[in-house]
Amino acid sequence: MSIREWRFSKRALAMKSSIIRETLKITQKPGVISFGGGLPAPELFPSEQLAEACKKVLMENSEQALQYGTTEGYKPLRDAIAERMGKIGVPCTAEQIMITGGSQQGLSVLGSAFLDEGDYVVSARPTYLGAIQAFNAYFPKYATLPSDDDGMTVDGLEEIVAEKSPKMIYLVPTFQNPDGRTIPVPRRKRILEIASKYHVPVIEDDPYSEVVFEGEVPQHMISISPDDVIMLGTFSKLLAPGLRTAWLIAPNTDCYDRCVRMKQGTDLHTNTFAQHVIYEFMKTGALDEHVAKINKVYAHRRNVMVESMRRHFPEGVSFTEPNGGLFLWVTLPEKINTLELIPKAVEKLVAYIPGTAFFPDGSGTNTLRLNFSKANDEEIEIGIERLGKLFQETLDA
Amino acid sequence: MSIREWRFSKRALAMKSSIIRETLKITQKPGVISFGGGLPAPELFPSEQLAEACKKVLMENSEQALQYGTTEGYKPLRDAIAERMGKIGVPCTAEQIMITGGSQQGLSVLGSAFLDEGDYVVSARPTYLGAIQAFNAYFPKYATLPSDDDGMTVDGLEEIVAEKSPKMIYLVPTFQNPDGRTIPVPRRKRILEIASKYHVPVIEDDPYSEVVFEGEVPQHMISISPDDVIMLGTFSKLLAPGLRTAWLIAPNTDCYDRCVRMKQGTDLHTNTFAQHVIYEFMKTGALDEHVAKINKVYAHRRNVMVESMRRHFPEGVSFTEPNGGLFLWVTLPEKINTLELIPKAVEKLVAYIPGTAFFPDGSGTNTLRLNFSKANDEEIEIGIERLGKLFQETLDA
Repeated sequence: MSIREWRFSKRALAMKSSIIRETLKITQKPGVISFGGGLPAPELFPSEQLAEACKKVLMENSEQALQYGTTEGYKPLRDAIAERMGKIGVPCTAEQIMITGGSQQGLSVLGSAFLDEGDYVVSARPTYLGAIQAFNAYFPKYATLPSDDDGMTVDGLEEIVAEKSPKMIYLVPTFQNPDGRTIPVPRRKRILEIASKYHVPVIEDDPYSEVVFEGEVPQHMISISPDDVIMLGTFSKLLAPGLRTAWLIAPNTDCYDRCVRMKQGTDLHTNTFAQHVIYEFMKTGALDEHVAKINKVYAHRRNVMVESMRRHFPEGVSFTEPNGGLFLWVTLPEKINTLELIPKAVEKLVAYIPGTAFFPDGSGTNTLRLNFSKANDEEIEIGIERLGKLFQETLDA
Repeated sequence: MSIREWRFSKRALAMKSSIIRETLKITQKPGVISFGGGLPAPELFPSEQLAEACKKVLMENSEQALQYGTTEGYKPLRDAIAERMGKIGVPCTAEQIMITGGSQQGLSVLGSAFLDEGDYVVSARPTYLGAIQAFNAYFPKYATLPSDDDGMTVDGLEEIVAEKSPKMIYLVPTFQNPDGRTIPVPRRKRILEIASKYHVPVIEDDPYSEVVFEGEVPQHMISISPDDVIMLGTFSKLLAPGLRTAWLIAPNTDCYDRCVRMKQGTDLHTNTFAQHVIYEFMKTGALDEHVAKINKVYAHRRNVMVESMRRHFPEGVSFTEPNGGLFLWVTLPEKINTLELIPKAVEKLVAYIPGTAFFPDGSGTNTLRLNFSKANDEEIEIGIERLGKLFQETLDA
């Protein structure tokens, strides 16, 4: 077989495989305890109830559930999502909700709908890497603001917005992936004032606000200022990522219709069967029960991890202790490069994601992300002990 | 609620809703017999066998089937597809196969991987509208060649390729949507010679080659010249479109890896659960049985439609009689504009898709597409009679 000299697009030539993907490949080795992926605990998946929902859908409504559907998504599911959003303080209607193939597709659709080459996106550093990857297909530039314990800082935000005329402000304001940080209401309001004044949409990427262990979740940005926010929600963390079913909430018909048309060209519509199954599953009340269950388990695992880190991590290593989500964020002394440390971590049979993956500007080399939802107590204890030794040895070297 | 003056991308501002979509909206009226959509017969969906497959997957393998998966797709399914492709004369391996969210996503990924603004795509006129819609997100130009009874003609193809340096040649070579035409082997070879000489990939979009009623299907283009073709296959017509599961076959690792990275940014991966369910369904041999069943029914419906057209259509109206696929193509006298005729068709309670929707250059105003897979015998007979009257009245007017 000879390889033809096909001419790929500029986009294809520029697109690199992500650090996360490469790290996950290297760390897939027998015996490695991985805190790398952002995976829900698979032993908690409600498989029996989902099997019942599948049976019901296929016996009662297969002609619709297996057929082509609308790009907007299955209307009863959109109604159910709207009702559920209302209960968590986000009033909206099915007409604002478009079903997407995971939030990743929502991000890709928004990139497509807003970004031309050279347009600016404002985001925190660090921020969710998948968003950067989705947006990069459209060659934007990034204007990033550093994070403190309260998430993205806002000093200088107005100046950046005034100067760069960004097309969007991208945020994961609650229990952000990767750092678990949450932006408090006053700071949310300040961001929204600026978004409103300069007519820039805020993308509120919200996979984690219902994955909460204690304390109050701040009011959603879309509730504070409904006209200025496009929100993304997903069943990936609440139910099962393999079902690839999520939603986008658009504040007005113009924005909604444009998003629908952008999605239509990319896959016509999201898996109809999965939409019907999730709808049946929700109808029985099983989703709320399931969310309560995972939150209990994840809270426990976060506690185990935090306590283990207190015992095993050397002085000079700090970490966040989020009230929800799936991730902890570790900051090491400046001299440690967590990307370069990966091979040694794998030698010690433990894995994480180097924090620099989440900085659009390539900084954050002394940080890393740990997932606490997937490993069990024993794995967490052993894995954190291995990490602690690795850090100590590196500091001593 | 006030609408903010958000600045959308050039892409979003250019993207219009498709004629098909608009036609389907107008024609969704009680009593209308629609030959518009490209829908499989929903009463034939193998719901019981799929329910069994769902149960098996969820009871035995839910931890994997509901979890995040790889962008490439579920390996056992890719193996099963490779084996099946081998049986229909397309030797390939799982390493060449990427699972996509319907062939529409395959088209979108290929657009993303190959097309920069202003690049040329060569295609037939008419051709599949969804491909045009997927590609248009990247602002290509089209160089089209007219079709005769053997599909896209090749007179002038080499000159076009030499002059325009197209990034791809897009074809549905077997039972093409919309016209049901098939390109014979000698013409396939001529196209492939040119593709090979000028290093231009041929996209062989192949949803219909197994939906065959009689006669031999010509050798697949990818089998004739494996290095020059990227092939798209799908379960949408063979099993159920609602499962949104299809595949792309890339001839070499470079092309494959680029397609995987393009897809990754748009949705991470395709629904894992659907992939597992289809794999279980295939393992039992149920897919081959199901394909045999739909082919028998669709062949009958095509016969009913063709016989009905012979009785009811006035002189001067011609149509194709394809040996497979889902569609017939009707050509009317030049003076009839099928798009303008839609309101009158709806008055007469019958619907079709205006042929001009499938011409990238806006021609084909006297043509239309009819689907024969979805309506039953009685509906076909009545619907075609209504159409015949409409044509006669229009010609008499």
